[in-house]
Amino acid sequence: MTAPGYRIVRMETHDVRFPTSRDLDGSDAMNPDPDYSAAYVVLTTDDGFEGHGFAFTIGRGNDVQTAAISALEPYVIGRDVEDLGALYKDMVDDSQLRWLGPEKGVMHMAISAVVNALWDLRAKREGKPVWLLLSEMTPEQIVGLVDFRYLSDALTPEQALDILRRAEDGKQERISRLRAEGYPAYTTSPGWLGYDDDKLRRLCKEALDEGFGQIKLKVGADLEDDRRRFSVAREVCGPDFPIAIDANQRWDVASAIEWIGALREFDPHWVEEPTSPDDVLGHAAIAEGVRPVPIATGEHVQNRIVFKQLLQAGAISYLQIDSARVGGVNENIAILLLAARFGIPVCPHAGGVGLCELVQHLSMFDYVAVSGSTDGRVIEYVDHLHEHFVTPVVIDNGRYVTPTAPGFSAEMHPESIAAHSFPGGEVWKDA
Amino acid sequence: MTAPGYRIVRMETHDVRFPTSRDLDGSDAMNPDPDYSAAYVVLTTDDGFEGHGFAFTIGRGNDVQTAAISALEPYVIGRDVEDLGALYKDMVDDSQLRWLGPEKGVMHMAISAVVNALWDLRAKREGKPVWLLLSEMTPEQIVGLVDFRYLSDALTPEQALDILRRAEDGKQERISRLRAEGYPAYTTSPGWLGYDDDKLRRLCKEALDEGFGQIKLKVGADLEDDRRRFSVAREVCGPDFPIAIDANQRWDVASAIEWIGALREFDPHWVEEPTSPDDVLGHAAIAEGVRPVPIATGEHVQNRIVFKQLLQAGAISYLQIDSARVGGVNENIAILLLAARFGIPVCPHAGGVGLCELVQHLSMFDYVAVSGSTDGRVIEYVDHLHEHFVTPVVIDNGRYVTPTAPGFSAEMHPESIAAHSFPGGEVWKDA
Repeated sequence: MTAPGYRIVRMETHDVRFPTSRDLDGSDAMNPDPDYSAAYVVLTTDDGFEGHGFAFTIGRGNDVQTAAISALEPYVIGRDVEDLGALYKDMVDDSQLRWLGPEKGVMHMAISAVVNALWDLRAKREGKPVWLLLSEMTPEQIVGLVDFRYLSDALTPEQALDILRRAEDGKQERISRLRAEGYPAYTTSPGWLGYDDDKLRRLCKEALDEGFGQIKLKVGADLEDDRRRFSVAREVCGPDFPIAIDANQRWDVASAIEWIGALREFDPHWVEEPTSPDDVLGHAAIAEGVRPVPIATGEHVQNRIVFKQLLQAGAISYLQIDSARVGGVNENIAILLLAARFGIPVCPHAGGVGLCELVQHLSMFDYVAVSGSTDGRVIEYVDHLHEHFVTPVVIDNGRYVTPTAPGFSAEMHPESIAAHSFPGGEVWKDA
Repeated sequence: MTAPGYRIVRMETHDVRFPTSRDLDGSDAMNPDPDYSAAYVVLTTDDGFEGHGFAFTIGRGNDVQTAAISALEPYVIGRDVEDLGALYKDMVDDSQLRWLGPEKGVMHMAISAVVNALWDLRAKREGKPVWLLLSEMTPEQIVGLVDFRYLSDALTPEQALDILRRAEDGKQERISRLRAEGYPAYTTSPGWLGYDDDKLRRLCKEALDEGFGQIKLKVGADLEDDRRRFSVAREVCGPDFPIAIDANQRWDVASAIEWIGALREFDPHWVEEPTSPDDVLGHAAIAEGVRPVPIATGEHVQNRIVFKQLLQAGAISYLQIDSARVGGVNENIAILLLAARFGIPVCPHAGGVGLCELVQHLSMFDYVAVSGSTDGRVIEYVDHLHEHFVTPVVIDNGRYVTPTAPGFSAEMHPESIAAHSFPGGEVWKDA
């Protein structure tokens, strides 16, 4: 029996788009003109509690993404909020929906949005931020949230339990430290391809002044431009400052090795998305070809099965989870556990719309209850669109301030949703 | 300038579903109750020529798939039918839509449907079946249809040209032979999990009587059932008859090796989809663990990049293309070329709704212009739903009869579309 107040009675979706292409914010080698968008979902319980979630897209197709979320309505309505594990499995394993993936692309991102909304709802009911709600679970409860299908050659439930039990030690101390000090961030704001050298220089300086311990530059459109921009950033930041670069899947294997070779004198902290996110063996060949330059990927990796292989193949030195592409919190827990098992640090992808807001909770949970460490770990930060959220991320001296508000920090202001609704919202009416 | 009659002026979509779950047709270990469905698209030119295409799904979510096809309308309207290569690239490389994949899942299947409809249209205009239209192209024209991005570590345009030029020799002879003899087929009709032993025995006998040279059984739900059913089929078909088995992604790596080990005494011709279609390294480990039992996969492989890796890793002995999951004819040409480069025979997945109709053209093109051989090659055949097509496949003595009608054999009868439209069609009204 579902207790009063725990039954989901309504699902509402919104196609929300921000016209970011007008200013070249977010421009990179593969995404020259994104309009950062959210296929947004609100779940409501019988006593009016709300859970908010979304899939992030970059414009066209956000209507399809929103329709995919709506298709999940029959799975959610009438269900118990506490029944999250079973509900997650019901959506992922539905034999008919599964054909549309399995576990990838539009349908999987839709599940992600709904699962994250369920976590927002559950955390609000418990009066806790998601990172804390997760961190206070027992190892057994956490393992119960994970779908181990297709993982057992790399991670069994028993091995996951071992990892989580080891992290029980010092948990309270890490929670206290997190509350006092926050979590380290890096910024991509200086590095978008559409910016000129003066703007790059100015933004690098600002990043240093603001206390960030790392920045990232987009590369991959033109090698000479990349060399010039990297040397500008290196000059401003100094020889020892970590500067990562991000090719956004621009290269084939051989061209990646060649291009990275031409940039290695600038000492990239990591090279992100050198090629297709589907190409495990390609990433492994690139890592081998540019060693010891570290390779990173993950924002477009479709699910835990591909992450498993990237780790098995020794293809990546940093694993970059995304909060809203794989099957939400539940699948990301599997990925955090895989990374811990292979000893690879997780440095999440963020930016977009609300991705910083969501993913901070996962990194903080990783620190408290999984890896137990922030060494070599940073969460991406991009300084835009936070004003649309009710409890936006707060950055202080280059660190994410640990959220205290109940929920997943996922809720957008109703006025923001209304103004940016596509195509009827006021922002789009004149376009 | 687009010549009159070559400009696309209309796109129309239909959510078409067949209630196949009522009879357990198509039941397997992962798909117990599919309702075979088509997200169907019709493109019309300014002089009324029509191209038909579809994405195949198994029921729920077919509305999302149909919406994804509709989202491609702006890319197609006003375009020239002859401009197919550029149009394909525009859809696949659209920087905003790309975020929804890239090149996988619902959005990629939508592109597949549109691309295949364009080929249907083009072939009808030329008055030729698609297999012949493709076979008569020059190697340079064929290579011009392929997107080599992310393939160059396994297949370059020059290597593709070499393969195609080698196959120029004897092309006319193979066309003649194909017209006279057709292409070998195997049947899955006896092997669905939902059937009892008597029905299995009867259908095995029928398959032999009908001249099929291979059958396939679904396995993976219960080992003792599998052993019993396999022994029934072996008894009916005899010790040397090729019987493939298909687990539909049911296993993890270790359980696959164990389960296959328990069935190898029945001499499986291949083991299909032992695990997740995303798990290249898993397939390689299984192939290694059960050698020399051949592993096959492909119907759920999302794109050419994953096929590339399956071949690079030596994970499969048979490659199973699907006509409507990857980016349509164009991406399937890339996959046929990859298979030829690695010397792996292509044995397509078919069945569903209209998949036999489409994929026969690709295997016939493979025979005439790519691999030049039918050795070890068979196209799957399932005997249902063909009556809904205007030019259904014809099977004669266990072989696909080579199609002669112009187009891609993709067109459904208007009455079938109307009766099975979901949820308003007469078949669904009473459900």
